[in-house]
Amino acid sequence: MTSTTAGPVLVLGGARSGKSTFAEKLVTTSGLGMHYVATGRAWDGEMQARIAEHRIRRGPDWQTHEEPLELAARLKAIDAADRVILIDCLTLWVTNLMMENRDLPAEFQKLVEWLPQAKARLVFVSNEVGLGIVPENRMARDFRDHAGRLHQLIAEKSAEVYFIAAGLPLKMKG
Amino acid sequence: MTSTTAGPVLVLGGARSGKSTFAEKLVTTSGLGMHYVATGRAWDGEMQARIAEHRIRRGPDWQTHEEPLELAARLKAIDAADRVILIDCLTLWVTNLMMENRDLPAEFQKLVEWLPQAKARLVFVSNEVGLGIVPENRMARDFRDHAGRLHQLIAEKSAEVYFIAAGLPLKMKG
Amino acid sequence: MTSTTAGPVLVLGGARSGKSTFAEKLVTTSGLGMHYVATGRAWDGEMQARIAEHRIRRGPDWQTHEEPLELAARLKAIDAADRVILIDCLTLWVTNLMMENRDLPAEFQKLVEWLPQAKARLVFVSNEVGLGIVPENRMARDFRDHAGRLHQLIAEKSAEVYFIAAGLPLKMKG
Repeated sequence: MTSTTAGPVLVLGGARSGKSTFAEKLVTTSGLGMHYVATGRAWDGEMQARIAEHRIRRGPDWQTHEEPLELAARLKAIDAADRVILIDCLTLWVTNLMMENRDLPAEFQKLVEWLPQAKARLVFVSNEVGLGIVPENRMARDFRDHAGRLHQLIAEKSAEVYFIAAGLPLKMKG
Repeated sequence: MTSTTAGPVLVLGGARSGKSTFAEKLVTTSGLGMHYVATGRAWDGEMQARIAEHRIRRGPDWQTHEEPLELAARLKAIDAADRVILIDCLTLWVTNLMMENRDLPAEFQKLVEWLPQAKARLVFVSNEVGLGIVPENRMARDFRDHAGRLHQLIAEKSAEVYFIAAGLPLKMKG
Repeated sequence: MTSTTAGPVLVLGGARSGKSTFAEKLVTTSGLGMHYVATGRAWDGEMQARIAEHRIRRGPDWQTHEEPLELAARLKAIDAADRVILIDCLTLWVTNLMMENRDLPAEFQKLVEWLPQAKARLVFVSNEVGLGIVPENRMARDFRDHAGRLHQLIAEKSAEVYFIAAGLPLKMKG
Protein backbone atom coordinates (compact mmCIF):
# COMPACT_ATOMS: atom_id res chain seq x y z
CA MET A 1 0.00 0.00 0.00
CA THR A 2 1.19 3.54 -0.62
CA SER A 3 0.30 6.63 1.31
CA THR A 4 -2.53 8.64 -0.18
CA THR A 5 -2.69 11.32 2.47
CA ALA A 6 -3.34 14.87 1.37
CA GLY A 7 -1.20 16.09 4.24
CA PRO A 8 0.05 15.27 7.72
CA VAL A 9 -2.00 14.33 10.75
CA LEU A 10 -1.52 16.35 13.94
CA VAL A 11 -2.50 14.75 17.25
CA LEU A 12 -2.65 17.22 20.16
CA GLY A 13 -3.43 16.43 23.76
CA GLY A 14 -2.49 16.92 27.37
CA ALA A 15 -0.29 14.82 29.62
CA ARG A 16 -1.49 11.19 29.78
CA SER A 17 -4.37 12.02 27.48
CA GLY A 18 -3.83 8.93 25.35
CA LYS A 19 -2.51 10.96 22.41
CA SER A 20 0.43 8.64 21.64
CA THR A 21 -1.77 5.55 21.82
CA PHE A 22 -4.28 7.18 19.47
CA ALA A 23 -1.51 8.16 17.03
CA GLU A 24 -0.01 4.68 17.16
CA LYS A 25 -3.39 3.20 16.27
CA LEU A 26 -3.57 5.45 13.19
CA VAL A 27 -0.16 4.11 12.18
CA THR A 28 -0.67 0.40 12.85
CA THR A 29 -3.91 0.35 10.85
CA SER A 30 -2.35 2.11 7.86
CA GLY A 31 -0.75 -0.95 6.30
CA LEU A 32 2.40 1.09 5.62
CA GLY A 33 5.98 0.53 6.82
CA MET A 34 6.06 1.91 10.34
CA HIS A 35 8.75 4.39 11.35
CA TYR A 36 9.00 6.12 14.69
CA VAL A 37 10.98 9.31 15.22
CA ALA A 38 11.64 9.89 18.92
CA THR A 39 12.58 13.51 19.65
CA GLY A 40 13.06 12.95 23.38
CA ARG A 41 16.43 12.75 25.07
CA ALA A 42 16.70 10.28 27.90
CA TRP A 43 18.44 12.75 30.23
CA ASP A 44 17.12 11.24 33.45
CA GLY A 45 15.56 8.09 34.81
CA GLU A 46 12.01 9.43 34.60
CA MET A 47 12.43 10.20 30.90
CA GLN A 48 14.17 6.85 30.26
CA ALA A 49 11.22 5.05 31.84
CA ARG A 50 8.72 6.90 29.64
CA ILE A 51 10.69 6.15 26.49
CA ALA A 52 11.03 2.46 27.40
CA GLU A 53 7.31 2.22 28.17
CA HIS A 54 6.43 3.67 24.75
CA ARG A 55 8.89 1.35 22.98
CA ILE A 56 7.44 -1.75 24.65
CA ARG A 57 3.93 -0.67 23.74
CA ARG A 58 4.84 -0.24 20.07
CA GLY A 59 6.42 -3.66 19.67
CA PRO A 60 9.09 -4.89 17.24
CA ASP A 61 7.43 -3.99 13.91
CA TRP A 62 8.53 -0.39 14.11
CA GLN A 63 11.79 1.10 12.94
CA THR A 64 12.90 3.64 15.54
CA HIS A 65 14.98 6.76 14.92
CA GLU A 66 16.23 9.13 17.60
CA GLU A 67 16.36 12.71 16.42
CA PRO A 68 16.39 15.44 19.05
CA LEU A 69 17.24 18.38 16.73
CA GLU A 70 17.45 17.93 12.94
CA LEU A 71 13.87 16.86 12.46
CA ALA A 72 13.36 18.19 8.93
CA ALA A 73 16.58 16.63 7.65
CA ARG A 74 15.78 13.29 9.30
CA LEU A 75 12.26 13.16 7.88
CA LYS A 76 13.57 13.93 4.39
CA ALA A 77 16.13 11.14 4.75
CA ILE A 78 13.57 8.46 5.58
CA ASP A 79 10.69 9.79 3.45
CA ALA A 80 9.10 7.24 1.11
CA ALA A 81 5.60 6.65 -0.24
CA ASP A 82 5.21 3.22 1.35
CA ARG A 83 5.93 4.53 4.85
CA VAL A 84 4.12 6.12 7.72
CA ILE A 85 6.28 8.15 10.11
CA LEU A 86 5.15 8.91 13.64
CA ILE A 87 6.94 11.89 15.22
CA ASP A 88 6.61 11.85 19.02
CA CYS A 89 6.68 14.59 20.02
CA LEU A 90 6.92 18.16 18.77
CA THR A 91 7.09 19.71 22.25
CA LEU A 92 10.23 17.75 23.11
CA TRP A 93 11.76 18.94 19.83
CA VAL A 94 10.92 22.54 20.84
CA THR A 95 12.57 21.93 24.22
CA ASN A 96 15.73 20.59 22.59
CA LEU A 97 15.94 23.49 20.13
CA MET A 98 15.62 25.98 23.00
CA MET A 99 18.33 24.21 25.01
CA GLU A 100 20.69 24.50 22.03
CA ASN A 101 19.80 28.17 21.49
CA ARG A 102 18.61 27.49 17.96
CA ASP A 103 16.63 29.99 15.89
CA LEU A 104 13.26 28.35 16.40
CA PRO A 105 11.20 30.19 13.76
CA ALA A 106 13.85 29.24 11.19
CA GLU A 107 13.85 25.60 12.29
CA PHE A 108 10.04 25.51 12.19
CA GLN A 109 10.14 27.01 8.70
CA LYS A 110 12.50 24.28 7.43
CA LEU A 111 10.07 21.61 8.59
CA VAL A 112 6.82 23.29 7.60
CA GLU A 113 7.83 24.31 4.09
CA TRP A 114 8.83 20.73 3.31
CA LEU A 115 5.55 19.17 4.50
CA PRO A 116 3.60 19.55 1.22
CA GLN A 117 6.30 17.54 -0.62
CA ALA A 118 6.44 14.65 1.85
CA LYS A 119 5.69 11.30 0.24
CA ALA A 120 5.27 9.38 3.51
CA ARG A 121 2.22 9.69 5.68
CA LEU A 122 3.29 11.86 8.65
CA VAL A 123 1.67 11.70 12.06
CA PHE A 124 2.82 14.36 14.52
CA VAL A 125 2.11 14.06 18.24
CA SER A 126 2.38 17.09 20.50
CA ASN A 127 1.45 18.33 23.94
CA GLU A 128 -1.03 21.15 24.25
CA VAL A 129 0.64 23.21 27.00
CA GLY A 130 -1.05 26.61 26.75
CA LEU A 131 -4.21 26.08 28.79
CA GLY A 132 -2.92 26.66 32.31
CA ILE A 133 -1.95 29.76 34.25
CA VAL A 134 0.77 31.95 32.67
CA PRO A 135 4.04 30.45 33.96
CA GLU A 136 6.16 32.65 36.19
CA ASN A 137 9.46 31.97 34.49
CA ARG A 138 10.30 33.49 31.16
CA MET A 139 11.68 30.34 29.56
CA ALA A 140 8.43 28.46 30.24
CA ARG A 141 6.46 31.34 28.70
CA ASP A 142 8.73 31.31 25.64
CA PHE A 143 8.36 27.55 25.40
CA ARG A 144 4.59 27.65 25.31
CA ASP A 145 4.67 30.49 22.79
CA HIS A 146 6.97 28.50 20.51
CA ALA A 147 4.90 25.35 20.91
CA GLY A 148 1.67 27.23 20.20
CA ARG A 149 3.10 28.83 17.06
CA LEU A 150 4.44 25.50 15.80
CA HIS A 151 1.05 23.84 16.35
CA GLN A 152 -0.64 26.55 14.30
CA LEU A 153 1.91 26.17 11.48
CA ILE A 154 1.61 22.37 11.35
CA ALA A 155 -2.18 22.42 11.71
CA GLU A 156 -2.44 24.76 8.73
CA LYS A 157 -0.63 22.22 6.51
CA SER A 158 -2.36 19.18 8.02
CA ALA A 159 -5.12 17.12 6.48
CA GLU A 160 -6.40 16.06 9.90
CA VAL A 161 -6.04 17.52 13.39
CA TYR A 162 -7.23 15.78 16.55
CA PHE A 163 -7.49 17.00 20.12
CA ILE A 164 -7.34 14.08 22.58
CA ALA A 165 -8.72 14.04 26.12
CA ALA A 166 -9.31 10.97 28.29
CA GLY A 167 -8.23 8.83 25.35
CA LEU A 168 -11.01 10.19 23.15
CA PRO A 169 -10.46 12.17 19.94
CA LEU A 170 -12.15 15.41 18.98
CA LYS A 171 -11.64 16.02 15.28
CA MET A 172 -10.74 19.66 14.77
CA LYS A 173 -9.90 19.46 11.06
CA GLY A 174 -10.41 17.03 8.19
CA MET B 1 -37.82 5.34 37.71
CA THR B 2 -34.89 3.00 37.44
CA SER B 3 -31.54 3.70 35.86
CA THR B 4 -31.22 2.50 32.28
CA THR B 5 -27.72 3.74 31.62
CA ALA B 6 -25.40 1.53 29.64
CA GLY B 7 -22.50 2.87 31.68
CA PRO B 8 -21.23 5.83 33.68
CA VAL B 9 -21.05 9.44 32.63
CA LEU B 10 -17.70 11.25 32.89
CA VAL B 11 -17.70 15.05 33.09
CA LEU B 12 -14.26 16.61 32.57
CA GLY B 13 -13.39 20.27 32.74
CA GLY B 14 -11.03 22.90 34.03
CA ALA B 15 -11.23 24.99 37.18
CA ARG B 16 -14.51 26.93 37.38
CA SER B 17 -15.57 25.53 34.04
CA GLY B 18 -19.08 24.77 35.25
CA LYS B 19 -18.46 21.01 35.27
CA SER B 20 -20.11 20.38 38.66
CA THR B 21 -23.16 22.45 37.73
CA PHE B 22 -23.47 20.54 34.46
CA ALA B 23 -23.16 17.20 36.25
CA GLU B 24 -25.71 18.24 38.87
CA LYS B 25 -28.17 19.10 36.13
CA LEU B 26 -27.77 15.61 34.67
CA VAL B 27 -28.59 14.24 38.10
CA THR B 28 -31.54 16.45 39.03
CA THR B 29 -33.28 15.76 35.71
CA SER B 30 -32.86 11.98 36.07
CA GLY B 31 -35.82 11.40 38.35
CA LEU B 32 -33.70 9.02 40.43
CA GLY B 33 -32.79 9.18 44.12
CA MET B 34 -29.90 11.63 44.31
CA HIS B 35 -26.69 10.69 46.09
CA TYR B 36 -23.56 12.78 46.29
CA VAL B 37 -20.14 11.35 47.09
CA ALA B 38 -17.74 14.10 48.12
CA THR B 39 -14.11 12.99 47.85
CA GLY B 40 -12.67 16.29 49.08
CA ARG B 41 -11.28 16.78 52.57
CA ALA B 42 -11.97 20.13 54.15
CA TRP B 43 -8.38 20.60 55.33
CA ASP B 44 -8.40 24.40 55.15
CA GLY B 45 -10.78 27.34 55.03
CA GLU B 46 -10.58 27.69 51.27
CA MET B 47 -11.60 24.07 50.76
CA GLN B 48 -14.34 24.31 53.41
CA ALA B 49 -15.79 27.31 51.58
CA ARG B 50 -15.84 25.44 48.27
CA ILE B 51 -17.53 22.42 49.81
CA ALA B 52 -20.14 24.59 51.55
CA GLU B 53 -20.83 26.48 48.33
CA HIS B 54 -21.44 23.23 46.45
CA ARG B 55 -23.69 21.90 49.21
CA ILE B 56 -25.85 25.02 49.23
CA ARG B 57 -26.21 24.88 45.46
CA ARG B 58 -27.37 21.27 45.53
CA GLY B 59 -30.11 21.80 48.12
CA PRO B 60 -31.66 19.39 50.61
CA ASP B 61 -32.88 16.67 48.21
CA TRP B 62 -29.47 15.03 48.01
CA GLN B 63 -28.01 12.45 50.31
CA THR B 64 -24.36 13.34 50.89
CA HIS B 65 -21.53 10.89 51.62
CA GLU B 66 -17.95 11.87 52.39
CA GLU B 67 -15.45 9.38 51.06
CA PRO B 68 -11.86 10.52 50.58
CA LEU B 69 -10.29 7.09 49.98
CA GLU B 70 -12.43 3.94 49.69
CA LEU B 71 -14.38 5.06 46.67
CA ALA B 72 -15.06 1.64 45.15
CA ALA B 73 -16.26 0.18 48.46
CA ARG B 74 -18.48 3.18 49.15
CA LEU B 75 -20.08 3.09 45.72
CA LYS B 76 -20.80 -0.63 46.07
CA ALA B 77 -22.40 0.02 49.46
CA ILE B 78 -24.87 2.60 48.17
CA ASP B 79 -25.42 1.11 44.70
CA ALA B 80 -29.08 0.58 43.71
CA ALA B 81 -31.03 0.75 40.46
CA ASP B 82 -33.27 3.61 41.58
CA ARG B 83 -30.34 5.88 42.37
CA VAL B 84 -28.02 8.28 40.63
CA ILE B 85 -24.67 8.86 42.30
CA LEU B 86 -22.60 11.93 41.59
CA ILE B 87 -18.91 11.54 42.46
CA ASP B 88 -17.20 14.94 42.82
CA CYS B 89 -14.39 14.68 42.08
CA LEU B 90 -11.89 12.10 40.87
CA THR B 91 -8.89 14.44 41.05
CA LEU B 92 -9.41 14.99 44.79
CA TRP B 93 -9.61 11.22 45.23
CA VAL B 94 -6.27 10.90 43.38
CA THR B 95 -4.79 13.57 45.68
CA ASN B 96 -5.97 11.73 48.77
CA LEU B 97 -4.63 8.37 47.56
CA MET B 98 -1.24 9.94 46.88
CA MET B 99 -1.13 11.56 50.33
CA GLU B 100 -1.78 8.16 51.90
CA ASN B 101 0.87 6.49 49.73
CA ARG B 102 -1.65 4.07 48.27
CA ASP B 103 -1.00 1.89 45.24
CA LEU B 104 -2.91 4.02 42.78
CA PRO B 105 -3.09 1.63 39.81
CA ALA B 106 -4.51 -1.04 42.17
CA GLU B 107 -7.07 1.40 43.61
CA PHE B 108 -8.09 2.50 40.11
CA GLN B 109 -8.46 -1.13 39.10
CA LYS B 110 -10.83 -1.87 42.01
CA LEU B 111 -13.09 0.96 40.87
CA VAL B 112 -12.91 0.42 37.13
CA GLU B 113 -13.49 -3.34 37.12
CA TRP B 114 -16.67 -2.85 39.16
CA LEU B 115 -18.18 -0.20 36.86
CA PRO B 116 -19.87 -2.59 34.40
CA GLN B 117 -21.83 -4.19 37.28
CA ALA B 118 -23.07 -0.94 38.82
CA LYS B 119 -26.86 -0.74 39.04
CA ALA B 120 -27.01 2.98 39.85
CA ARG B 121 -26.41 5.67 37.28
CA LEU B 122 -22.92 7.00 38.02
CA VAL B 123 -21.80 10.51 37.14
CA PHE B 124 -18.09 11.20 37.68
CA VAL B 125 -16.75 14.76 37.76
CA SER B 126 -13.04 15.40 37.32
CA ASN B 127 -10.57 18.16 36.60
CA GLU B 128 -8.61 18.06 33.40
CA VAL B 129 -5.16 19.10 34.67
CA GLY B 130 -2.80 18.03 31.89
CA LEU B 131 -3.01 20.96 29.50
CA GLY B 132 -0.54 23.37 31.07
CA ILE B 133 3.24 23.51 31.22
CA VAL B 134 4.98 20.44 32.71
CA PRO B 135 5.08 21.15 36.47
CA GLU B 136 8.51 21.56 38.03
CA ASN B 137 7.89 19.33 41.02
CA ARG B 138 7.78 15.59 40.73
CA MET B 139 4.65 15.07 42.82
CA ALA B 140 2.64 17.39 40.59
CA ARG B 141 3.89 15.51 37.52
CA ASP B 142 2.95 12.18 39.10
CA PHE B 143 -0.44 13.60 40.03
CA ARG B 144 -1.30 14.63 36.51
CA ASP B 145 -0.05 11.28 35.18
CA HIS B 146 -2.30 9.41 37.60
CA ALA B 147 -5.26 11.67 36.85
CA GLY B 148 -4.76 11.28 33.10
CA ARG B 149 -4.58 7.50 33.36
CA LEU B 150 -7.69 7.33 35.53
CA HIS B 151 -9.62 9.51 33.07
CA GLN B 152 -8.69 7.17 30.23
CA LEU B 153 -9.76 4.12 32.23
CA ILE B 154 -13.11 5.62 33.25
CA ALA B 155 -13.77 7.07 29.79
CA GLU B 156 -13.28 3.65 28.25
CA LYS B 157 -16.07 2.20 30.43
CA SER B 158 -18.33 5.25 30.15
CA ALA B 159 -21.45 5.59 28.06
CA GLU B 160 -21.01 9.36 27.80
CA VAL B 161 -18.02 11.67 28.22
CA TYR B 162 -18.28 15.47 28.25
CA PHE B 163 -15.61 18.14 28.19
CA ILE B 164 -16.87 21.39 29.76
CA ALA B 165 -15.54 24.88 29.10
CA ALA B 166 -17.24 28.16 29.99
CA GLY B 167 -20.22 26.15 31.23
CA LEU B 168 -20.75 24.56 27.82
CA PRO B 169 -20.48 20.83 27.10
CA LEU B 170 -18.58 19.23 24.25
CA LYS B 171 -19.71 15.63 23.90
CA MET B 172 -16.65 13.45 23.37
CA LYS B 173 -18.40 10.08 23.60
CA GLY B 174 -21.95 8.77 23.51
CA MET C 1 -24.26 47.32 7.23
CA THR C 2 -25.65 47.11 10.74
CA SER C 3 -25.03 44.44 13.29
CA THR C 4 -27.66 41.74 13.41
CA THR C 5 -26.09 39.59 16.10
CA ALA C 6 -28.35 38.03 18.69
CA GLY C 7 -25.58 38.35 21.24
CA PRO C 8 -21.83 38.53 21.71
CA VAL C 9 -19.23 36.12 20.43
CA LEU C 10 -16.78 34.60 22.93
CA VAL C 11 -13.46 33.25 21.64
CA LEU C 12 -11.58 31.13 24.17
CA GLY C 13 -8.20 29.55 23.71
CA GLY C 14 -4.79 28.88 25.18
CA ALA C 15 -1.56 30.81 24.81
CA ARG C 16 -0.60 31.19 21.14
CA SER C 17 -3.64 29.23 20.09
CA GLY C 18 -4.52 31.67 17.32
CA LYS C 19 -7.55 32.99 19.22
CA SER C 20 -6.86 36.68 18.48
CA THR C 21 -6.25 35.99 14.80
CA PHE C 22 -9.50 34.02 14.62
CA ALA C 23 -11.42 36.82 16.38
CA GLU C 24 -9.88 39.46 14.11
CA LYS C 25 -11.03 37.50 11.08
CA LEU C 26 -14.60 37.51 12.42
CA VAL C 27 -14.32 41.27 12.73
CA THR C 28 -12.69 42.10 9.40
CA THR C 29 -15.27 40.07 7.47
CA SER C 30 -18.20 41.73 9.24
CA GLY C 31 -18.33 44.87 7.10
CA LEU C 32 -18.85 46.94 10.25
CA GLY C 33 -16.72 49.78 11.66
CA MET C 34 -13.89 48.07 13.50
CA HIS C 35 -13.09 49.00 17.07
CA TYR C 36 -10.50 47.37 19.26
CA VAL C 37 -10.52 47.58 23.04
CA ALA C 38 -7.14 46.63 24.48
CA THR C 39 -7.36 45.71 28.15
CA GLY C 40 -3.63 45.03 28.53
CA ARG C 41 -1.25 47.41 30.24
CA ALA C 42 2.20 47.65 28.70
CA TRP C 43 4.02 47.35 32.03
CA ASP C 44 7.15 45.71 30.65
CA GLY C 45 9.01 45.18 27.41
CA GLU C 46 7.57 41.70 26.83
CA MET C 47 4.00 43.04 27.08
CA GLN C 48 4.84 46.06 24.92
CA ALA C 49 6.18 43.73 22.24
CA ARG C 50 2.99 41.64 22.28
CA ILE C 51 0.77 44.71 22.03
CA ALA C 52 2.83 46.15 19.18
CA GLU C 53 2.74 42.82 17.34
CA HIS C 54 -1.07 42.68 17.59
CA ARG C 55 -1.41 46.31 16.45
CA ILE C 56 0.76 45.74 13.37
CA ARG C 57 -1.24 42.66 12.46
CA ARG C 58 -4.54 44.52 12.67
CA GLY C 59 -3.47 47.38 10.39
CA PRO C 60 -4.73 50.98 10.20
CA ASP C 61 -8.46 50.37 9.63
CA TRP C 62 -9.13 49.78 13.31
CA GLN C 63 -9.90 52.36 15.94
CA THR C 64 -8.02 51.38 19.10
CA HIS C 65 -9.10 52.10 22.69
CA GLU C 66 -7.05 51.26 25.78
CA GLU C 67 -9.21 50.35 28.73
CA PRO C 68 -7.62 48.36 31.54
CA LEU C 69 -10.46 48.73 34.09
CA GLU C 70 -13.77 50.41 33.18
CA LEU C 71 -14.71 47.95 30.48
CA ALA C 72 -18.49 48.20 30.79
CA ALA C 73 -18.44 52.02 30.75
CA ARG C 74 -16.09 52.11 27.78
CA LEU C 75 -18.17 49.68 25.75
CA LYS C 76 -21.33 51.67 26.45
CA ALA C 77 -19.53 54.85 25.33
CA ILE C 78 -18.54 53.47 21.94
CA ASP C 79 -21.57 51.22 21.36
CA ALA C 80 -23.35 51.73 18.00
CA ALA C 81 -25.22 49.45 15.60
CA ASP C 82 -22.78 49.97 12.72
CA ARG C 83 -19.81 48.84 14.77
CA VAL C 84 -18.06 45.67 15.77
CA ILE C 85 -15.98 45.85 18.93
CA LEU C 86 -13.22 43.34 19.65
CA ILE C 87 -12.27 43.12 23.32
CA ASP C 88 -8.82 41.53 23.78
CA CYS C 89 -8.71 40.11 26.33
CA LEU C 90 -10.91 39.35 29.33
CA THR C 91 -8.14 37.65 31.30
CA LEU C 92 -6.01 40.82 31.28
CA TRP C 93 -9.04 42.77 32.48
CA VAL C 94 -9.42 40.28 35.34
CA THR C 95 -5.71 40.72 36.18
CA ASN C 96 -6.07 44.51 36.26
CA LEU C 97 -9.19 44.39 38.44
CA MET C 98 -7.39 42.13 40.91
CA MET C 99 -4.35 44.42 41.03
CA GLU C 100 -6.63 47.35 41.89
CA ASN C 101 -8.47 45.32 44.55
CA ARG C 102 -11.80 45.80 42.80
CA ASP C 103 -14.95 43.86 43.67
CA LEU C 104 -14.76 41.45 40.74
CA PRO C 105 -18.24 39.91 40.91
CA ALA C 106 -19.71 43.45 40.94
CA GLU C 107 -17.55 44.50 37.97
CA PHE C 108 -18.51 41.35 36.06
CA GLN C 109 -22.17 42.07 36.80
CA LYS C 110 -21.95 45.60 35.36
CA LEU C 111 -20.62 44.18 32.11
CA VAL C 112 -22.81 41.11 31.84
CA GLU C 113 -26.14 42.79 32.61
CA TRP C 114 -25.51 45.32 29.87
CA LEU C 115 -24.71 42.75 27.16
CA PRO C 116 -28.30 42.10 26.02
CA GLN C 117 -28.75 45.83 25.27
CA ALA C 118 -25.55 46.26 23.25
CA LYS C 119 -26.17 47.53 19.72
CA ALA C 120 -22.68 46.78 18.43
CA ARG C 121 -21.48 43.32 17.59
CA LEU C 122 -19.17 42.33 20.46
CA VAL C 123 -16.35 39.83 20.14
CA PHE C 124 -14.63 38.88 23.39
CA VAL C 125 -11.28 37.11 23.41
CA SER C 126 -10.06 35.33 26.52
CA ASN C 127 -7.48 32.86 27.70
CA GLU C 128 -8.63 29.51 29.01
CA VAL C 129 -6.34 29.14 32.04
CA GLY C 130 -8.01 26.44 34.12
CA LEU C 131 -6.71 23.27 32.49
CA GLY C 132 -3.35 22.90 34.20
CA ILE C 133 -2.29 21.82 37.67
CA VAL C 134 -3.78 23.79 40.59
CA PRO C 135 -1.37 26.72 41.07
CA GLU C 136 0.51 26.83 44.35
CA ASN C 137 -0.08 30.49 45.06
CA ARG C 138 -3.43 31.76 46.21
CA MET C 139 -3.59 34.75 43.88
CA ALA C 140 -3.15 32.51 40.83
CA ARG C 141 -5.94 30.23 42.11
CA ASP C 142 -8.22 33.22 42.67
CA PHE C 143 -7.35 34.50 39.22
CA ARG C 144 -8.37 31.30 37.47
CA ASP C 145 -11.53 31.11 39.55
CA HIS C 146 -12.49 34.64 38.55
CA ALA C 147 -11.62 34.02 34.91
CA GLY C 148 -13.61 30.79 34.87
CA ARG C 149 -16.66 32.45 36.41
CA LEU C 150 -16.51 35.36 33.97
CA HIS C 151 -16.28 32.96 31.02
CA GLN C 152 -19.39 31.15 32.20
CA LEU C 153 -21.29 34.44 32.62
CA ILE C 154 -20.30 35.76 29.18
CA ALA C 155 -20.87 32.40 27.49
CA GLU C 156 -24.40 32.27 28.87
CA LYS C 157 -25.24 35.59 27.17
CA SER C 158 -23.32 34.83 23.99
CA ALA C 159 -24.74 33.83 20.63
CA GLU C 160 -21.57 31.99 19.68
CA VAL C 161 -18.71 30.50 21.69
CA TYR C 162 -15.53 29.09 20.15
CA PHE C 163 -12.67 27.14 21.66
CA ILE C 164 -9.47 27.59 19.63
CA ALA C 165 -6.52 25.19 19.52
CA ALA C 166 -3.71 25.18 16.94
CA GLY C 167 -5.51 27.98 15.12
CA LEU C 168 -8.61 25.83 14.62
CA PRO C 169 -12.05 26.63 16.05
CA LEU C 170 -14.33 24.23 17.88
CA LYS C 171 -17.81 25.71 18.02
CA MET C 172 -19.19 25.19 21.52
CA LYS C 173 -22.36 27.26 21.12
CA GLY C 174 -24.36 28.82 18.28
